[in-house]
Amino acid sequence: MIDFRSDNTGRAAPEILEALIQANRETALGYGGDDWTAALQRRFSELFEATVRVFPVATGTAANALALASLGPSWGIVYCSEVAHINTAEANATGFFGGGLKLVTIGGDHGRINAARLAEALAGIAPGQIHRGKPSAVSLTQATDLGAVYTVDQIRAVVDVAKRRGLKLHMDGARFANALARLGCSPAEATWRSGIDIMSFGATKNGGALCDAIVVFASDLADGLAVQLRRAGQVWSKMRFASAQLIAYVENGRWLDMARSSNAIAARIAAGLSDTPAARLLAPVEANEIFLELPSMTMDRLEADGFQFYRRSQSLARFVCRFDTTAAEGDALLTALTRHLPSATARRAAE
Amino acid sequence: MIDFRSDNTGRAAPEILEALIQANRETALGYGGDDWTAALQRRFSELFEATVRVFPVATGTAANALALASLGPSWGIVYCSEVAHINTAEANATGFFGGGLKLVTIGGDHGRINAARLAEALAGIAPGQIHRGKPSAVSLTQATDLGAVYTVDQIRAVVDVAKRRGLKLHMDGARFANALARLGCSPAEATWRSGIDIMSFGATKNGGALCDAIVVFASDLADGLAVQLRRAGQVWSKMRFASAQLIAYVENGRWLDMARSSNAIAARIAAGLSDTPAARLLAPVEANEIFLELPSMTMDRLEADGFQFYRRSQSLARFVCRFDTTAAEGDALLTALTRHLPSATARRAAE
Amino acid sequence: MIDFRSDNTGRAAPEILEALIQANRETALGYGGDDWTAALQRRFSELFEATVRVFPVATGTAANALALASLGPSWGIVYCSEVAHINTAEANATGFFGGGLKLVTIGGDHGRINAARLAEALAGIAPGQIHRGKPSAVSLTQATDLGAVYTVDQIRAVVDVAKRRGLKLHMDGARFANALARLGCSPAEATWRSGIDIMSFGATKNGGALCDAIVVFASDLADGLAVQLRRAGQVWSKMRFASAQLIAYVENGRWLDMARSSNAIAARIAAGLSDTPAARLLAPVEANEIFLELPSMTMDRLEADGFQFYRRSQSLARFVCRFDTTAAEGDALLTALTRHLPSATARRAAE
Amino acid sequence: MIDFRSDNTGRAAPEILEALIQANRETALGYGGDDWTAALQRRFSELFEATVRVFPVATGTAANALALASLGPSWGIVYCSEVAHINTAEANATGFFGGGLKLVTIGGDHGRINAARLAEALAGIAPGQIHRGKPSAVSLTQATDLGAVYTVDQIRAVVDVAKRRGLKLHMDGARFANALARLGCSPAEATWRSGIDIMSFGATKNGGALCDAIVVFASDLADGLAVQLRRAGQVWSKMRFASAQLIAYVENGRWLDMARSSNAIAARIAAGLSDTPAARLLAPVEANEIFLELPSMTMDRLEADGFQFYRRSQSLARFVCRFDTTAAEGDALLTALTRHLPSATARRAAE
Repeated sequence: MIDFRSDNTGRAAPEILEALIQANRETALGYGGDDWTAALQRRFSELFEATVRVFPVATGTAANALALASLGPSWGIVYCSEVAHINTAEANATGFFGGGLKLVTIGGDHGRINAARLAEALAGIAPGQIHRGKPSAVSLTQATDLGAVYTVDQIRAVVDVAKRRGLKLHMDGARFANALARLGCSPAEATWRSGIDIMSFGATKNGGALCDAIVVFASDLADGLAVQLRRAGQVWSKMRFASAQLIAYVENGRWLDMARSSNAIAARIAAGLSDTPAARLLAPVEANEIFLELPSMTMDRLEADGFQFYRRSQSLARFVCRFDTTAAEGDALLTALTRHLPSATARRAAE
Repeated sequence: MIDFRSDNTGRAAPEILEALIQANRETALGYGGDDWTAALQRRFSELFEATVRVFPVATGTAANALALASLGPSWGIVYCSEVAHINTAEANATGFFGGGLKLVTIGGDHGRINAARLAEALAGIAPGQIHRGKPSAVSLTQATDLGAVYTVDQIRAVVDVAKRRGLKLHMDGARFANALARLGCSPAEATWRSGIDIMSFGATKNGGALCDAIVVFASDLADGLAVQLRRAGQVWSKMRFASAQLIAYVENGRWLDMARSSNAIAARIAAGLSDTPAARLLAPVEANEIFLELPSMTMDRLEADGFQFYRRSQSLARFVCRFDTTAAEGDALLTALTRHLPSATARRAAE
Repeated sequence: MIDFRSDNTGRAAPEILEALIQANRETALGYGGDDWTAALQRRFSELFEATVRVFPVATGTAANALALASLGPSWGIVYCSEVAHINTAEANATGFFGGGLKLVTIGGDHGRINAARLAEALAGIAPGQIHRGKPSAVSLTQATDLGAVYTVDQIRAVVDVAKRRGLKLHMDGARFANALARLGCSPAEATWRSGIDIMSFGATKNGGALCDAIVVFASDLADGLAVQLRRAGQVWSKMRFASAQLIAYVENGRWLDMARSSNAIAARIAAGLSDTPAARLLAPVEANEIFLELPSMTMDRLEADGFQFYRRSQSLARFVCRFDTTAAEGDALLTALTRHLPSATARRAAE
Repeated sequence: MIDFRSDNTGRAAPEILEALIQANRETALGYGGDDWTAALQRRFSELFEATVRVFPVATGTAANALALASLGPSWGIVYCSEVAHINTAEANATGFFGGGLKLVTIGGDHGRINAARLAEALAGIAPGQIHRGKPSAVSLTQATDLGAVYTVDQIRAVVDVAKRRGLKLHMDGARFANALARLGCSPAEATWRSGIDIMSFGATKNGGALCDAIVVFASDLADGLAVQLRRAGQVWSKMRFASAQLIAYVENGRWLDMARSSNAIAARIAAGLSDTPAARLLAPVEANEIFLELPSMTMDRLEADGFQFYRRSQSLARFVCRFDTTAAEGDALLTALTRHLPSATARRAAE
């Protein structure tokens, strides 16, 4: 079996697990009062070229929901893409942790929020009205849930619209490393220098094991969030074992190396498909995910060949490249796809 | 420095971290669809001699709050001890996850709930009244937050009162291993056979690393809880790394061995103190914690000697023995206590 | 000025205010333990030909949100129309009272939910999955927010789809009297005999003053709801003054007389417009609301003539007929519309 | 039957119901955009000698819970008296509307919060700790739930302690008129000039019918509260009928006249009892409530004589004087009490 199911079916980077063992030598103060958690703050502040607060959390869902809950009142409206993970796959955690926060979706291409459509939606809500809640935040998913990546300019366009109305900005960076590897800019440039107030910093999907993090750029948000996290059961008493994972994750550029590797395999497959007219991509392959329109029968054949992937609908397959996906696995998939994809002629005939 | 601060300052059992590495060999389905999580269900079902559902969670706070939220309506009343962790140290997580659940405290000795006082409290709330919420659950902490242990009969006395009124029973087993090591009965006897519906199964305080668990005995609670946990950001996508820890924790009786070790050192210190008339214990030492009334000056001297512990008030110190506390460390503390404690005569004079 | 702004700009039926004075003669037990509230239960049970529980509440928002919160778990999904009041105008009260309940919209014509589209949405959510919450209820607005009315068969089509999946059914009956006046069937037929479990029974929009009600058909929902209402601050201590209003509202068919009156004026205007080819209605006029596409300039002229109404967008006007709207006022509006509406020829030329 | 059960069994002042009829003459804008609601703002601003925002709400529970929810984060701690209505009788509405707010009780005499004990409680919570939530507000009940009244100095003593720690101040003024009638000071002096930020302004218990109000002194709280109230289903669309009641309530000093009347009858009974050594009052009678320790048999006899009152326990009776309680009814109760109360000699013998 060759596994293209999801980022989360992957292994952890061995160095991350090794870091747990290194952190297990002595006793250490609980609830984040330990040396690893202090080092984590410094390490991420260097990484982001600013004094940031980093809160390790168990999952990306916790990161998203608690970050968003910290950005505004419980009667707030959070704007996101229709396909955003917070809207489709987190059991309305944002609504729950936000005490009734409402997600409102904004259209755009390939899982992005379109700045003009956001402006239009905001224009429809008069300041001071009480019937619809209060627009309070925007959540951008970077890379998007369809495998595209916001350019820095695209981020800024959305930020500009949002800030003009006093909204705060959240980035769901479940695949932030993949996006950054694509953009080639600095972490700072991709986040706070472009107006992001708080981010979900993903590690799990990119070789992490048991934690992600919330990174807070707008420092006034941090103290309240600290209590929210405690109340949410997201503050490990043996926090050092989480902090050590995150330190190992970013050490020596490991996170970006892993992301570059998965991105490269996805790009290689996409490039190979570009010669196959019958291959229809739902979105440009800019990170580590490939959304491919496929006849159901083609999906059957791929599975018969031993490939694992998710069927998002009867005619849409998703293939995810992980940090531990090998080039050989990528090539095998490309070969199989090329073999099984109906020729453009056949497809047209079928249609 | 000799560390008696808390269970959570301790190391993890090396076998638990080793289990992570063992679980990192191949890809595996996410969100608990993996082999380790399946094995965990079987292993705990054997352990509890019943088909149970086990949900790994990041922290004991998450275990407590989500277990309690699953037991009744959001307008429920949960009865607990005044000193229960859920009442004093979890930032009202139960009130939050419970959607407004109210904790009401019931007195008793040494951190226990007294069954008669519970009966009295319930008698004061007429069935069907709407002004005070609906009594819905009782939470027992085992071992208690003062280091005592409910006997099975004491559990049953509380359960009887509660069940007569239709309440559900939760056990906060943050130190369940320590309690079980003390009781010497089976896990089943200490829980569902005595009427417990759901429990927080602690591992972190007893040599665990990054997870505890909810164990569900009343099977009708499990499906709803599964969604609540997902929404709470407590379902790791790489769940195998949590399940593997819990399997290693209970493997070959490791959990009870560790608990017996910490209990034994605490008992040894307590026994030594029984010869010191000036030593006043707040509660019998039945698990791994010692709550000792100490003059502030004595606490200063202990710290000067290099002992670390928590001052719970100006005249109350807490010493916690961990699975990795050595007998030599225990003896050192006993020696220092004996040396610094004012003689009974001196104390009487001072009073 | 002639007021077509909203149902809620209207007067109260004088008999309803008179009932308050009648209820003010003696002392009476608080919180619904009074004779009027008991009589209300009987009166509505006769009206609905079943033993129902009636809970007076201050507003339709309270009725909707608390009724929906009673229908399922806080991780539930409630399906409603895109234009449903609960989705557009109640500040996400349902999400709040439901503890994180999520509204998901289903398309359909004229503010209705289309049964086939509901079936399709449900088919996309596998039973037992944990990532999207749990489909738990459907909310039908009767009459719809665009002034249409579900036929009994249309209600049943939606109910059938929902019940097959175990969902509960809520009816937002803010304009239930208007819908019933249109349908001509019994209140029972329009509700529980067609599968409705709980309803928001509107009075305010149809000549009421300060209360609406929740009517519970599925009796197992009532006791929990009673506590939820108390906690929500929706149980008046002098409840008799609310119950007396609702009794007066339905007495001698007053509610249906008022609804027939407002419906009739709306129908008369709509009929008059049918001779004006340029008049484009957004939905058939089946209750007391008229949604009319109008050039902005035409709206200006109507206002200059002294007509008050809401501009829902730059090209959509809403005119609402109230129980106290006179036939003369309706005729005046029709005349003005006919005068100001561009002729079909002019419109086509402009397009 | 002579009714001393509760304030809420009383009639409404006829002028308040008459005001509804006066407000029913024309159409008026909904949701508080009407002339009565505007007049209410002006009238209360005069009354309190400051620009205040007044929000009519259906019940005192709504006023309390939503006012408190506006004062701090959902992880806040609200300090109140053990016997405070918010703690004993509102189904934890504060915990619910506050999104998990926790009530922590502070001792004091006769239902008051003792300033020194509040200081002690606050001293036990280190600023910045995350385990116990964040102290955020204090709620004073004026008059208290045991019928006593805070002096202005007593209010200020609590306020001083609270403000030093950055807490906000709420007053539950369900019986504010009774307290003010006792104090004889201005509404301003009793509230914002003494440091109160927001209050629940009770009317129902003192001759009101269907609404109380939140009065906001700290203007930055008002805009968020407006949306919270909308979401809570506490914004009537025909708001004028609520505002008109509140205007009539305070018109020409009516509210204070009514409170003086009920206070006077309670004081007269209390004075009469002072000659009866066997009469043991739980608290000084400073408003309109009398809490009297009575043998169960005495309570039986009073009921046999036709008196209605609440048994708060087997040996505690509560008698409430309403604005519409007559002096003759008060005298009748005093006579009956004097007759049935065991002589001091008999009581001592029985003990």
